[in-house]
Amino acid sequence: MSQNIQKGELLYEGKAKKIFAIPGNETEVLVLFKDSLTAFNALKKGEFENKGAINREITSLLFQYLSRKRIQTHWVSDLSATEMVVKKVEIIPLEVVIRNVLAGSTAKKLGIEEGRVLSKPLVEFYFKNDALADPFLSDDQALMMEIVTAAEIETLKKKALELNSVLKDLWNKAQITLVDFKVEFGRTKSGEILLADEISPDCCRLWDQKTGEKLDKDRFRRDLGSVKENYELVLSRLRGALNG
Amino acid sequence: MSQNIQKGELLYEGKAKKIFAIPGNETEVLVLFKDSLTAFNALKKGEFENKGAINREITSLLFQYLSRKRIQTHWVSDLSATEMVVKKVEIIPLEVVIRNVLAGSTAKKLGIEEGRVLSKPLVEFYFKNDALADPFLSDDQALMMEIVTAAEIETLKKKALELNSVLKDLWNKAQITLVDFKVEFGRTKSGEILLADEISPDCCRLWDQKTGEKLDKDRFRRDLGSVKENYELVLSRLRGALNG
Repeated sequence: MSQNIQKGELLYEGKAKKIFAIPGNETEVLVLFKDSLTAFNALKKGEFENKGAINREITSLLFQYLSRKRIQTHWVSDLSATEMVVKKVEIIPLEVVIRNVLAGSTAKKLGIEEGRVLSKPLVEFYFKNDALADPFLSDDQALMMEIVTAAEIETLKKKALELNSVLKDLWNKAQITLVDFKVEFGRTKSGEILLADEISPDCCRLWDQKTGEKLDKDRFRRDLGSVKENYELVLSRLRGALNG
Repeated sequence: MSQNIQKGELLYEGKAKKIFAIPGNETEVLVLFKDSLTAFNALKKGEFENKGAINREITSLLFQYLSRKRIQTHWVSDLSATEMVVKKVEIIPLEVVIRNVLAGSTAKKLGIEEGRVLSKPLVEFYFKNDALADPFLSDDQALMMEIVTAAEIETLKKKALELNSVLKDLWNKAQITLVDFKVEFGRTKSGEILLADEISPDCCRLWDQKTGEKLDKDRFRRDLGSVKENYELVLSRLRGALNG
């Protein structure tokens, strides 16, 4: 974490992160993880101290682990507790959701009780668009919207399932069930598709395998309390699983 | 319309039709078209005199036309102004929507103004379930719900697109734009997939090519008035196109 890197222009500010240019560097950008926490398309807002640092560390640990498992991500290096350097990519405006157990919006829409284990993982696409509240898309709708090509849809699904398989095993070692999670992918200038954005309790459902407790953003969404303590628990369990 | 057929047990009552058994006939059922009209998952209710007869006639004319175009439907014969005999099928609980022009729920969800002509038709699946308000499904979700097999999804899409191509041309002859429509398919005992249910202004968006006027259930949904007159106009234009 000791590179001579300076924060340039603010390129983008999202709900939980800021992206800055790096002066003199055309191929990488700086990501800063904020302490803010939002839910329901930012209708509910909160924050807690150290949240940015926790999510940055979880994301960095996971991205480095994925890289060792030959899954390409945009992670380049850590810069500070809340900052990392990543490859510059054009984010594909699809939230790619992978579900192992039904919960959240899909369980509700299908009238199925939370907790049904799927016989195989389900990949879903949501159009990343705050003004429209991230609508769910079929593959054909994503094609119609010209967000992705048919070949990219297949690539995204394949990458999502490979990623899920590796992460599920890792969280298992941490005695955590990976219920579902949301990721984003980006295109590099050369046309490669890389895992981008973050993987943290903000965008995963993580259930304690012993107690059944929710360890993720649902604690905030559903006012279950102890949000910070559970994010910290996830980080410490992840560290243990990676060292174990 | 002069068969010696009797109404048996009421097998099913939907929002716009009743299905009766035919005593002594195991392979066919009787469909009665009601005068009632509903929208927004039956939150809005109405009716008008002769609506059942108009929709029955439009459906019968279209199904017979489709049959001449080698598209298999469940239609067997007409029985009275509001009744027809159809092959008994197990309805696949998917509303199959085909869109040529964006309108309705999909336009709204994607933030696109009604009327955008699609460069190619879009096929969508909705889970036919009143209690859940017919949620939109991706192909993968339909598979996960075990509503259809992967092969059936391909068959449904292929049949939907063939059907759309034939119907679009026919409505064109009637100087009507087929904006979108909803159909249902059924499985016969031998495993064939047939077009079933109905095709009427209740489940199509039909726009007058000269005036741009809506000629379909949107007149009722959106309180545009002259519902009956426009359904009658659709029938008379269809008769003209078939005889022309």
